[in-house]
Amino acid sequence: MKRLKSHKTFGGDTAFWSHVSEETQTEMKFATFVPTGPIKGCIIWLSGLTCTEENFITKAGAQRALSRAQLMLIAPDTSPRGLNLPGEHASDDFGSGAGFYVDATTPDYAGNYRMYSYLLNDIYPLIGTQFGVENVSIMGHSMGGHGALVLGLRNPQLFRSISAFSPIAHPSTVAWGQKALTGYLGADRQAWLAYDACELLKMGKSHEAPILIHQGTEDPFLPMQLKIEDFREAALAVRQKHTIVYAEGYDHSYYFISSFVDAHIEHHAQFMAMARN
Amino acid sequence: MKRLKSHKTFGGDTAFWSHVSEETQTEMKFATFVPTGPIKGCIIWLSGLTCTEENFITKAGAQRALSRAQLMLIAPDTSPRGLNLPGEHASDDFGSGAGFYVDATTPDYAGNYRMYSYLLNDIYPLIGTQFGVENVSIMGHSMGGHGALVLGLRNPQLFRSISAFSPIAHPSTVAWGQKALTGYLGADRQAWLAYDACELLKMGKSHEAPILIHQGTEDPFLPMQLKIEDFREAALAVRQKHTIVYAEGYDHSYYFISSFVDAHIEHHAQFMAMARN
Repeated sequence: MKRLKSHKTFGGDTAFWSHVSEETQTEMKFATFVPTGPIKGCIIWLSGLTCTEENFITKAGAQRALSRAQLMLIAPDTSPRGLNLPGEHASDDFGSGAGFYVDATTPDYAGNYRMYSYLLNDIYPLIGTQFGVENVSIMGHSMGGHGALVLGLRNPQLFRSISAFSPIAHPSTVAWGQKALTGYLGADRQAWLAYDACELLKMGKSHEAPILIHQGTEDPFLPMQLKIEDFREAALAVRQKHTIVYAEGYDHSYYFISSFVDAHIEHHAQFMAMARN
Repeated sequence: MKRLKSHKTFGGDTAFWSHVSEETQTEMKFATFVPTGPIKGCIIWLSGLTCTEENFITKAGAQRALSRAQLMLIAPDTSPRGLNLPGEHASDDFGSGAGFYVDATTPDYAGNYRMYSYLLNDIYPLIGTQFGVENVSIMGHSMGGHGALVLGLRNPQLFRSISAFSPIAHPSTVAWGQKALTGYLGADRQAWLAYDACELLKMGKSHEAPILIHQGTEDPFLPMQLKIEDFREAALAVRQKHTIVYAEGYDHSYYFISSFVDAHIEHHAQFMAMARN
């Protein structure tokens, strides 16, 4: 694990790292913010389409609230880099910058596009081994909101709480999701369901902490790509606790995220504070 | 004045604009944040080398504190764009992205590089005419910190207060300043002094509000380019009220700015609140 650069921020440390992943077979980058003093837990942030490890850490304005809540944050990149797989760089919503937090099984992508396992087997453990921090929660935006819901619902024992900004909540039913899931998992829709938050709820996956979602009402992707109402219906049907806040007039940007990131950090902080049995 | 895009942020409006400037004879861009509700004043933000109208508004995390203080902010670009003057695009510290907030007199640049007058005659008036806001203060970073000190000290009647992050405080004595002042004003050093904060203090320019400066101790540009101690000495000599905060361990980046921008906003807010005679 190599420290590339760091910047003192709100008394703590914003840093950028690289390491070699056995899951992706590539060098991967991630960013961290570590406050000073005792640390109560770590939030994993998953970014959306086209993002790198930099977007959240430079644009969300989260370090102030993280310092106050005594939480660290780790923001991984959104896909492997430095490869040249067939079609990998052809579009914004598939391949580089668009790993969708799945383990690919299609021949071209199965060897490297293993972002689900990268998060569980590379990123998650290093929070403890490299930073000495125990309690972990997960949140993300858009494609990363999808990732946070899927990782969290499939591994509730690993994550204290889950939250999302404008997540792709029902990917198997929308264009972004169908393109990515076909490309990474093939045409058999049955294989997609393990990476679809609504379908996971229907299968009985759940989390004991209420799931917090913020969604801008002026988000251009809301009606066709995000399907937040499907998530609400699925959650109600299985009694998964949740809070969905429709934020009037907000869009899909980091200006929206910055406006509500403090609320998400406080949400996760309350579950970090509870003693684990 | 053309509204290019806007994003709801902390209940207010982050927007990007373009307009044609008579001073620069070009189309110029600027960004604004306007909070909801009554507005007590406007801060002009001047960015540093290589920046555009975007850097501060996306990276500083200032909208939260601006909303709370009921202040708007306007962030202009750092130079004219779309020209191809001799040497204009050859380096990071002169020409495009590096207007240095002066009115050029050298033949190649005199027609367009008039950022000092652009701020006074184009930006300053539109705060009143387009946004209906009266009280104005000024702050900036690095080259923009220099700009804020110079604009503020030369026009104390126009600005309620002045602040700066890591300003180029004594430009006529450092490499960045000498290159820019030579290129825009020619070799006669006498002409430079009107654009040098330390020299302006020595000439008797002053401001009734204390000038707030934050400076990171790990800023790589501190010893050779910024000369904050020269500013302190000049201010002490003429009894210009000032507060210089050396922030231990911080560098020259927006991580540093974001850590202390709330303090600057609160500084300006207190002078906005005072009634003007």
